[in-house]
Amino acid sequence: MRQASYTLTIRTRGKGLVDISENVEAHVRDSGIDNGLATLFCRHTSASLLIQENAAPAARRDLEAFFERIAPEDGPYEHDDEGADDMPAHLRAALTQSQLSIPLLDRQLALGRWQGIYLFEHRRAPHERQIVLHLIGD
Amino acid sequence: MRQASYTLTIRTRGKGLVDISENVEAHVRDSGIDNGLATLFCRHTSASLLIQENAAPAARRDLEAFFERIAPEDGPYEHDDEGADDMPAHLRAALTQSQLSIPLLDRQLALGRWQGIYLFEHRRAPHERQIVLHLIGD
Amino acid sequence: MRQASYTLTIRTRGKGLVDISENVEAHVRDSGIDNGLATLFCRHTSASLLIQENAAPAARRDLEAFFERIAPEDGPYEHDDEGADDMPAHLRAALTQSQLSIPLLDRQLALGRWQGIYLFEHRRAPHERQIVLHLIGD
Repeated sequence: MRQASYTLTIRTRGKGLVDISENVEAHVRDSGIDNGLATLFCRHTSASLLIQENAAPAARRDLEAFFERIAPEDGPYEHDDEGADDMPAHLRAALTQSQLSIPLLDRQLALGRWQGIYLFEHRRAPHERQIVLHLIGD
Repeated sequence: MRQASYTLTIRTRGKGLVDISENVEAHVRDSGIDNGLATLFCRHTSASLLIQENAAPAARRDLEAFFERIAPEDGPYEHDDEGADDMPAHLRAALTQSQLSIPLLDRQLALGRWQGIYLFEHRRAPHERQIVLHLIGD
Repeated sequence: MRQASYTLTIRTRGKGLVDISENVEAHVRDSGIDNGLATLFCRHTSASLLIQENAAPAARRDLEAFFERIAPEDGPYEHDDEGADDMPAHLRAALTQSQLSIPLLDRQLALGRWQGIYLFEHRRAPHERQIVLHLIGD
């Protein structure tokens, strides 16, 4: 049994989903671990992780619009140190994931055919985000 | 330290929660791993995983009704390739879990007394769903 | 490769976020495991786990208020065996996390600078909550 850890740096362009599947898969191959468990951890509270549909761009636009409605910028927030997109960013992160674990089978992440791994940026401005990838297995 | 992986196939009857606790526990026993970590990964973006109350059927009905309200079929969606239940399914999956990890103590999942493991089907039609179960431990 | 498990007992004062970061970190140090994966599992369906902003108290108040709005006590619920806060507690748990896995690097959890680990109590009354912490690594 072995383990490996990587820090992935992802540049975002402001609000929206960034497909990081290929980046993660490249690190999995690099590790030489064939079977085991891969864990992604997002080191931020205004960005998060999500497994979503990787085929239809309209589905991603609908998903982004949904989170604009459910946690709107014009909500009754007390906390706005960094602007109107500050508190909604924390709420959207709370409603999605800080962490994802995905089994690794024969050097492949066990993703379904239509699943992609996304970093979900919740701030308006571009950011540089860090995701820690931990791998354990044989 | 050892590991084992299984693919569980779950048939759903359309929208709603399916209790998969016993199915998961049977595979845990089969593995012979007594202490460690069990990870469930749902290979779909229109079904998801959830730990919920396993006693009151009314609680499950309320939970299903809540997700109908929060991500309704008649929302302002652009993506409807597979019908009115297509996009809400992705939203409900995004709000719940693609993955659950549960410690394994003395051959038992560390579930609380009132916790069950559920597959949450978000599509109207019955589906056959795949969940990968990864176990690691001694 | 080694593993260790602990049960953390957390006393809550009713609804709200309880910072458990230091408690978790103390157990990580106790384990003697330097690099690996830490998994927290909440053994309840009316309390949950969340990574959130650890600096601004206003952000925590906004987050608590948001969940009061999105899953209100006066919703159209069938299940109210334990009072008006019973079903909203299950909904708020479903929208957040039962489980969190965090990589462990050089004896430190891979948390970002502004991230804290919180137990989110969803019931009005104080409760004693159990969280299982599983550690695996070297």
